[in-house]
Amino acid sequence: MVEAGLKVRVDAAGNLIGRLDGADPNLGPIAIGSHSDTVQGGGRFDGIAGVIAGIAVARVLGQNGGLEHPLEVIDFLAEEPSDFGLSCIGSRGMAGLLDEGMLAMASPDGGLLRDALRQVGGDPEALSSAVRQDLAAFIEMHIEQGPVLEARGLDIGVVSSIVGIRRIEIVFEGVAAHAGTAPMDLRQDAAFAGALALVAVRELAEALASEGPEYFVATVGILEVKPGGSNVVPNLCRLVIDARSSDRTMTDRFEAGINEASHDAAKRARVNRSAFKTLSDGFPASCSEGIREAIRAAAQTLGLSAIDIASGAGHDAAFIAQVCPAGMIFIPCLRGMSHTPDEWSTREQLAAGAAVMLQAVLSIDSTGAYFSSSPGFTQL
Amino acid sequence: MVEAGLKVRVDAAGNLIGRLDGADPNLGPIAIGSHSDTVQGGGRFDGIAGVIAGIAVARVLGQNGGLEHPLEVIDFLAEEPSDFGLSCIGSRGMAGLLDEGMLAMASPDGGLLRDALRQVGGDPEALSSAVRQDLAAFIEMHIEQGPVLEARGLDIGVVSSIVGIRRIEIVFEGVAAHAGTAPMDLRQDAAFAGALALVAVRELAEALASEGPEYFVATVGILEVKPGGSNVVPNLCRLVIDARSSDRTMTDRFEAGINEASHDAAKRARVNRSAFKTLSDGFPASCSEGIREAIRAAAQTLGLSAIDIASGAGHDAAFIAQVCPAGMIFIPCLRGMSHTPDEWSTREQLAAGAAVMLQAVLSIDSTGAYFSSSPGFTQL
Repeated sequence: MVEAGLKVRVDAAGNLIGRLDGADPNLGPIAIGSHSDTVQGGGRFDGIAGVIAGIAVARVLGQNGGLEHPLEVIDFLAEEPSDFGLSCIGSRGMAGLLDEGMLAMASPDGGLLRDALRQVGGDPEALSSAVRQDLAAFIEMHIEQGPVLEARGLDIGVVSSIVGIRRIEIVFEGVAAHAGTAPMDLRQDAAFAGALALVAVRELAEALASEGPEYFVATVGILEVKPGGSNVVPNLCRLVIDARSSDRTMTDRFEAGINEASHDAAKRARVNRSAFKTLSDGFPASCSEGIREAIRAAAQTLGLSAIDIASGAGHDAAFIAQVCPAGMIFIPCLRGMSHTPDEWSTREQLAAGAAVMLQAVLSIDSTGAYFSSSPGFTQL
Repeated sequence: MVEAGLKVRVDAAGNLIGRLDGADPNLGPIAIGSHSDTVQGGGRFDGIAGVIAGIAVARVLGQNGGLEHPLEVIDFLAEEPSDFGLSCIGSRGMAGLLDEGMLAMASPDGGLLRDALRQVGGDPEALSSAVRQDLAAFIEMHIEQGPVLEARGLDIGVVSSIVGIRRIEIVFEGVAAHAGTAPMDLRQDAAFAGALALVAVRELAEALASEGPEYFVATVGILEVKPGGSNVVPNLCRLVIDARSSDRTMTDRFEAGINEASHDAAKRARVNRSAFKTLSDGFPASCSEGIREAIRAAAQTLGLSAIDIASGAGHDAAFIAQVCPAGMIFIPCLRGMSHTPDEWSTREQLAAGAAVMLQAVLSIDSTGAYFSSSPGFTQL
């Protein structure tokens, strides 16, 4: 950032911010960036690509006399789930959503988030100073982390919304029995109920996903069967469902459907559905229509192909969308892989994303008023 | 055994044997008994009830002048799966089926079965002396370990056959993916294939079980989903199926059906079925028709209700049936529970089983020739 001519600071929420002053001191900054932390065993693109592209854009603009607006390149603190069990720590802080309860969260070694934040240069006692009501716009470039752009041979994804994530836990309790002596019609097999529920999750998710235009996916990533002996009819089965949609009413319909299907599964397997519980429930965030149009137009100007796409992953932009018009640029990545060392985007794909960001920033800078009438950053 | 007037020895296979001499030195012994070992966390009836009932029968007979045949009460060595990973050690030895490979099996602390056998009074170098070609008949009384007799209010189960157990492992391998960004129609979800396979196992087992008259059950007791994160589409699912039948052709039909169903499941989930493997495969054993008739008649004489029933669990009698006509008497147990401290049969249920055994032994003793023409101990 220093080499790119930016003035660098760390805000109270631990975000690293590089600033290029603008010509008009009355305008709020246009912000660009992403995060540079990764998951354990992650790759070199998720987050980092957006920070580097932001610095590249800032360098070009600095070398060419800057903008009317100030420009800020932000490397958000700890976007990935951290040791404290919390993700998007820096962007939460900027949106005023990092609260006392979160600061008191502890890592496995007993350290508090409050103290860790201080160690990286933040100030947990002055978090309100990190909240940004002044930003004119925010754009985040990120690898898609999915296969759609690559599969369709497209250069740019114009992110329409960032999904809300609801996690639902279902527990079935039956009766453990001897696998040899319990007749089929007298069994109370919890795993049978779990398998029926998993199939129902998949089938309902496929149906909702194919409705369009809203985005919907659901996954059973955790399925535990106890006691887990080959000669014992299982007495316990636990599933955790991860449901994501750009449309909260779809998630509600999904939950209602799975509530009914898992009830029926318990009845058919003659077991007790002892838990049907929402573990977490995040709202979807919509991207600013004005920013989306600026990204779309930038791609067109540069001769790049683009489509609207919902983000199935969470991002810092979802939090920043709470305080200013925000948008995201997706670039293709190899086979949609992410959170693995195999994560990959080509130099050309990265350059195309950065060029679109530069073009969009220039357009936002010259037509800033464009956004004042935008429905912008509504929370769905 | 000594108090009941029996002469006690330990044979080369480690079985504890109490003998009451018979009046006719040319007749082979009638044997009764079961095992006194239990699983960890097991109860006080599985096995032990049959040994105690055997001693009670021997005491009564000894007090009343004995039989024409010698009588032997046998407490078989290590019927339950032992630290060496082998069950029915003593009865295998009596049937000549305890081989060198088994003697070389090691416990977790590194000890060999060969040495452990010596420690309990057996003689691994003289195992052939434990093989019993001389037995006239064998009857084992055992708790049902299932709910049928109690549910139907019956006193006695006349065991028709002891199931063969086949264990089949299926592994599905898909591709791990981000639960948010992998569209439903591009997923290669191994857990989905596993759930479809589990449902197919249950449905096919129900269909085979309802065919009758042969016994059939199948269980998926092990279902593992990897990597097991709530936000990751699973790339691996492993199932172990336990299929048991009195009719080996039924198990063959089941395996063929599951082979096809799991192939279809892999196709539907777009994953690879990387394993479909038989882990173990035991033959079913049929009980001697002559012994069954003696048990049935004994129950009728005593005014007790009885039905024919297949044993879904393995028993020492399955091995002894390889060397002489063998049969089993089942008595009811509380809610079919077994392998738990809650295992329970009432004094009346135990006494009824012992009385039937006594009556059946008397009948076999007086009509020994009855068995020479019996199809007897065929292996299905």
